Amino acid sequence: MKYILSREDEVVIGVGSAQYSHTFENPLTAGERIEVIYRTLKASGVDLGRCFITPIPDLGEHMLWVSRVRSFCPSFQTVYSNNPLVARLFSEAGYQIRPVPLFEREKYMATEIRKKIAKGDDWRSLVHPAAYEYLVSIGLQERIRYILADDHSSGGG
Amino acid sequence: MKYILSREDEVVIGVGSAQYSHTFENPLTAGERIEVIYRTLKASGVDLGRCFITPIPDLGEHMLWVSRVRSFCPSFQTVYSNNPLVARLFSEAGYQIRPVPLFEREKYMATEIRKKIAKGDDWRSLVHPAAYEYLVSIGLQERIRYILADDHSSGGG
Amino acid sequence: MKYILSREDEVVIGVGSAQYSHTFENPLTAGERIEVIYRTLKASGVDLGRCFITPIPDLGEHMLWVSRVRSFCPSFQTVYSNNPLVARLFSEAGYQIRPVPLFEREKYMATEIRKKIAKGDDWRSLVHPAAYEYLVSIGLQERIRYILADDHSSGGG
Amino acid sequence: MKYILSREDEVVIGVGSAQYSHTFENPLTAGERIEVIYRTLKASGVDLGRCFITPIPDLGEHMLWVSRVRSFCPSFQTVYSNNPLVARLFSEAGYQIRPVPLFEREKYMATEIRKKIAKGDDWRSLVHPAAYEYLVSIGLQERIRYILADDHSSGGG
Amino acid sequence: MKYILSREDEVVIGVGSAQYSHTFENPLTAGERIEVIYRTLKASGVDLGRCFITPIPDLGEHMLWVSRVRSFCPSFQTVYSNNPLVARLFSEAGYQIRPVPLFEREKYMATEIRKKIAKGDDWRSLVHPAAYEYLVSIGLQERIRYILADDHSSGGG
Amino acid sequence: MKYILSREDEVVIGVGSAQYSHTFENPLTAGERIEVIYRTLKASGVDLGRCFITPIPDLGEHMLWVSRVRSFCPSFQTVYSNNPLVARLFSEAGYQIRPVPLFEREKYMATEIRKKIAKGDDWRSLVHPAAYEYLVSIGLQERIRYILADDHSSGGG
Repeated sequence: MKYILSREDEVVIGVGSAQYSHTFENPLTAGERIEVIYRTLKASGVDLGRCFITPIPDLGEHMLWVSRVRSFCPSFQTVYSNNPLVARLFSEAGYQIRPVPLFEREKYMATEIRKKIAKGDDWRSLVHPAAYEYLVSIGLQERIRYILADDHSSGGG
Repeated sequence: MKYILSREDEVVIGVGSAQYSHTFENPLTAGERIEVIYRTLKASGVDLGRCFITPIPDLGEHMLWVSRVRSFCPSFQTVYSNNPLVARLFSEAGYQIRPVPLFEREKYMATEIRKKIAKGDDWRSLVHPAAYEYLVSIGLQERIRYILADDHSSGGG
Repeated sequence: MKYILSREDEVVIGVGSAQYSHTFENPLTAGERIEVIYRTLKASGVDLGRCFITPIPDLGEHMLWVSRVRSFCPSFQTVYSNNPLVARLFSEAGYQIRPVPLFEREKYMATEIRKKIAKGDDWRSLVHPAAYEYLVSIGLQERIRYILADDHSSGGG
Repeated sequence: MKYILSREDEVVIGVGSAQYSHTFENPLTAGERIEVIYRTLKASGVDLGRCFITPIPDLGEHMLWVSRVRSFCPSFQTVYSNNPLVARLFSEAGYQIRPVPLFEREKYMATEIRKKIAKGDDWRSLVHPAAYEYLVSIGLQERIRYILADDHSSGGG
Repeated sequence: MKYILSREDEVVIGVGSAQYSHTFENPLTAGERIEVIYRTLKASGVDLGRCFITPIPDLGEHMLWVSRVRSFCPSFQTVYSNNPLVARLFSEAGYQIRPVPLFEREKYMATEIRKKIAKGDDWRSLVHPAAYEYLVSIGLQERIRYILADDHSSGGG
Repeated sequence: MKYILSREDEVVIGVGSAQYSHTFENPLTAGERIEVIYRTLKASGVDLGRCFITPIPDLGEHMLWVSRVRSFCPSFQTVYSNNPLVARLFSEAGYQIRPVPLFEREKYMATEIRKKIAKGDDWRSLVHPAAYEYLVSIGLQERIRYILADDHSSGGG
């Protein structure tokens, strides 16, 4: 965020797959994801008056996705993403794409952090203190353990 | 059912993923699943005047699922389930969850029974005679074989 | 129900538009509609072991509706309905349609009863005592008044 | 917003019916609605670090709506709304509802302002200067005229 | 069609609202609408090797509609339509719009023809003989009468 | 197509999963799939006046699929397919199913051709020259490489 805000006046953070939660890929609701980003940015001294954080529900149809993003977001001119499909879809729609430099990529991978939470390993140092405090307060650890138990469950459902 | 009816006045059986059928996971339509449960309960002497059997279509959004269940079912106070995600979602919504004792779990596993049907193995002894008679009458064996052939098919579709 | 049960062994009651509630057309959830039918049939001495009550969510595509009904209901051979579109769709699909004799039609019209409830008029004599008791217990009168206020509201929403 | 922020630490503004646009009821996309609210609040000196503005797509099923709102929004405790159905649904779900005082209601009615825009009447004084500037920049007047022409159109579509 | 084919090499006919049928607005399925267009063009000597007829299901979200049309149709450069909203949406997406000259507009209005069919008036001279023959063969008159009876029905449904 | 047209007057080609694109399974939009079939048939001298090519969006509910196909296609009597599930669903709905003879099956497998395209291997000889020219013109190779990069991506999304 600091990198992009150093180059742009305002930034829209799109929270994708917004309708999903309680899965290993997306354990948090869109609202919880918005809140953890907001608490972290606020605690980091980022000017929230220059940031929009917007949930974007998936449609499951790639050809509609760029229009969906445009419909749910304030107007934007440049797309920052390292994801090849995102880059391809926005580039087919005529947008300019820019990569985002990753910061200590091996250490800060979302999937690895979720795995550590699931196993009960220490993950406090891997997220911002404001994020840690918030995620513990909503019981993220317990929720992830239930989600994983479900995958290995032989029960009903 | 007999276990729950010994503890409660009435019971609602929710038939989940109600919109699906003709898959290995859910070979039967919701209506066929309702009918096989009903025929089995009737033949077992369970008082059908104390039972509701209700199809509940999935939404694919876990945060909405408890409200969906509440919307499609007569009112209920206690949830019986061994499924961790079901337990978690209802418990986040303030419901009391109770486990169901499993009866000869190794023998009566739905997935294993479907595999036997697919292979042409004997499965008559694994379901109630009333269920067996009904499932044969609707051609379950042939349907499961077609579904599995589809998974290995090199044809169109 | 008594008329149909005098001619058929079993009957499936389809509760249509099952996903809707809190509208003037469908103030009750599907689960509440199931419950009021069930309480009324039980209090009327109808054999519930011969009745299925099944919610059927609308799709909004008439060409799919007969298949949707077949998918959510136990198997059936004859369709009882006075609705012309229902008759047309099932008849295009090869089903036999039979009309249902209406009982004191001017008195027992659902729309009129909902209007009386909305206005605060007496409606006790227009439904079965078991239905009245149940509907009052869930606060139907207050709910309908809120729904109608919404239609005339100049507020947010 | 100033009224609510004088009573609460933070406020979430839910932009409902978020998937709709280009209708007389909702001529703007959710993103455009977010942007006009944000530009107005910023120009009015409201602390944006205490505000969330979140699009919430409709589901069309009232029983799921409170869960949908909870899923898309940061956590909230009190609901401010003058809409009777919103009040009813949140109150059935156990939330506390508070009304919002309306400011010169006869003058500032959204429907009336849209009608003026459609007719080409002056509407500049009816919205904040920052909102006016933004709405003109995206061609709102022309869009509304096309939408209304469509309603009276005898052409294809 | 002859007008457009005199100006373009190939033409794509988009059959909109493709998922609907059995309503007064869209009594025919998309497949039936395709067939009546095809039979008429063939009987009129139009070169079908230069025509695509493609069903396009509605999404109900105007911002996604142009992308949906692009996704379901072979590539196209120019949009022929007299509909203001279609014109507006394609023009916001950067397409060139051209009007279609209407031929004896008062006589050949789809709504008026459907009304004549509903009333049992003569409509044979208002459609191409090939269309008339096809529409009679699928029982359009009877279907429209059932649909209208449904609108005035006091029965179930 | 030549095989079927030698036995039938007209043929409807259903382009399934029509809403999907930009995946490894369905890299092309429905419109692009229609166009590549049409260009190939035209270049092969097939009489396009005897062919319909119709996109059919999936519903994800197998029990509704035959009705969906019937709704989107001109009327048909016989179903040509080698797919076991297609055969099963149409046969449960009372249709006659016929297999299609496969032509040099080992050589012309869609999945293998897509894999060759992804790896940059030569695939020119595996499709009709008219199809090759069209697919290259829309950048299929680059699109497939982006889609595969996405599957292995560690970036955002």
